[in-house]
Amino acid sequence: MKRTAYFISDGTGITAETLGNSLLTQFENIDFEEITLPYVDTVEKAQQTVERINKSCEEDGGAAIVFDTIVNEEIRALISASNGFKIDVFSTFLKPLERELNSKSTYTVGKSHAINEVDRYRARIESVNFALDNDDGARTKQYQHADIILVGVSRSGKTPTCLYLALQFGIRAANYPLTPEDMEAPDIPEILKQHRHKLYGLTIDAFHLAAIRNERRPNSRYSSLDQCDFETRTVERYFKQNRIGFIDTTNASIEEISTRIMADGGLTRRIV
Amino acid sequence: MKRTAYFISDGTGITAETLGNSLLTQFENIDFEEITLPYVDTVEKAQQTVERINKSCEEDGGAAIVFDTIVNEEIRALISASNGFKIDVFSTFLKPLERELNSKSTYTVGKSHAINEVDRYRARIESVNFALDNDDGARTKQYQHADIILVGVSRSGKTPTCLYLALQFGIRAANYPLTPEDMEAPDIPEILKQHRHKLYGLTIDAFHLAAIRNERRPNSRYSSLDQCDFETRTVERYFKQNRIGFIDTTNASIEEISTRIMADGGLTRRIV
Repeated sequence: MKRTAYFISDGTGITAETLGNSLLTQFENIDFEEITLPYVDTVEKAQQTVERINKSCEEDGGAAIVFDTIVNEEIRALISASNGFKIDVFSTFLKPLERELNSKSTYTVGKSHAINEVDRYRARIESVNFALDNDDGARTKQYQHADIILVGVSRSGKTPTCLYLALQFGIRAANYPLTPEDMEAPDIPEILKQHRHKLYGLTIDAFHLAAIRNERRPNSRYSSLDQCDFETRTVERYFKQNRIGFIDTTNASIEEISTRIMADGGLTRRIV
Repeated sequence: MKRTAYFISDGTGITAETLGNSLLTQFENIDFEEITLPYVDTVEKAQQTVERINKSCEEDGGAAIVFDTIVNEEIRALISASNGFKIDVFSTFLKPLERELNSKSTYTVGKSHAINEVDRYRARIESVNFALDNDDGARTKQYQHADIILVGVSRSGKTPTCLYLALQFGIRAANYPLTPEDMEAPDIPEILKQHRHKLYGLTIDAFHLAAIRNERRPNSRYSSLDQCDFETRTVERYFKQNRIGFIDTTNASIEEISTRIMADGGLTRRIV
């Protein structure tokens, strides 16, 4: 069975999309076509949206599922009149919250965000710059300013994770690639030793690592299954020996890896 | 008035946090302390969480607001018994959805995500690598593979935006810094010309640009308000003359900049 799902907002649509996607993944036997429509903020766009929803309903032979976080009442009323099955995210929860908090809501998406937007933007830029400057062991002098230092073998996912931590949470994340030589040494590298409490390890299934490395350097020793198997076994033993917490990234999403690192490392977000 | 808000999940907590934060920003006169607790997936952790919630209720003199997306029934029942004011995100919407879809939900957070996790992870890594390889005009040979090419003056936010587009949407985003020389030339640079339809501009308030540049190169001509004012005025005229769509990033969040670029550029996410 196929159904179309719409995530509609007069803002970015991220809240509607995040919630809607989480809910729809609970229905395994239905094939959803998911469409995000952000910035539906004029009567004209609302009318086009309604036409689109109604067309989906006809084509699918079942109501389209419509998640909305529209603030503007006129726009919301227009969308309400579509033939879709409507999940009005804000109204549903704001009324009970208003009672509990004994306070009227402004019903303005991201209003408080806007106030701190400049600070937030700069905090993000700073942490992204930190991640880029301290990527791949390129520079180690700023490690005292790092919130966390990810360690792992080449291509185990350190860079994307550092960038996600920076963008999503404003965390200053450095990363250092462990070479086979590093792991054969009797102790952890001097530069890391003094920041031992900030270290966190990433590991990955050897087969997946080989596939990822093959895209960069096809048919090399570096990307051979043998070498990847050797490195991943060695690095996991290394993490255990040196009591470095670590996570296997093979079947995890970047969201999951990052939130686990935050939780395990006792880190709190620098931006909200 | 102060209240504590908890975003609790046995997964990453991202859905609870995104929705909860959007709802709470509607209450401007209340000072919320927001606490995300991901991976509450054991009875022990649930009991600790309940103690923490109850302590907040006592200290605040008002119920803590608890948003949860807990799947495990035993854990959910434990959290329900706390003194917090509970917003059960999944239960609220899944029942009406089950009726409409005439289908039982698996009530398993991110289950369908897990299935595609490896592909999704690799798509993200590929697009992050693309953004890093094609950052700051470093390489231009891959522009034919780009989904979008961001242009703007130095430090107008191109790199973080490219990385966000890569991580969040799997979009291959390159960026090219426009120098004063580029903008004085009678036509746009040759390398960009053939990809004209992929260009998208970023601009920023001169005052903010000067502040950002000053952090990199304090008291330089590059970071002077005069120079920043000149460059931003020139670049905006340049965008208009060359009919390049653009966005002012000054008071926008990275989410907003990115979703606007997606919408204006007619791009669809490569990962869900």
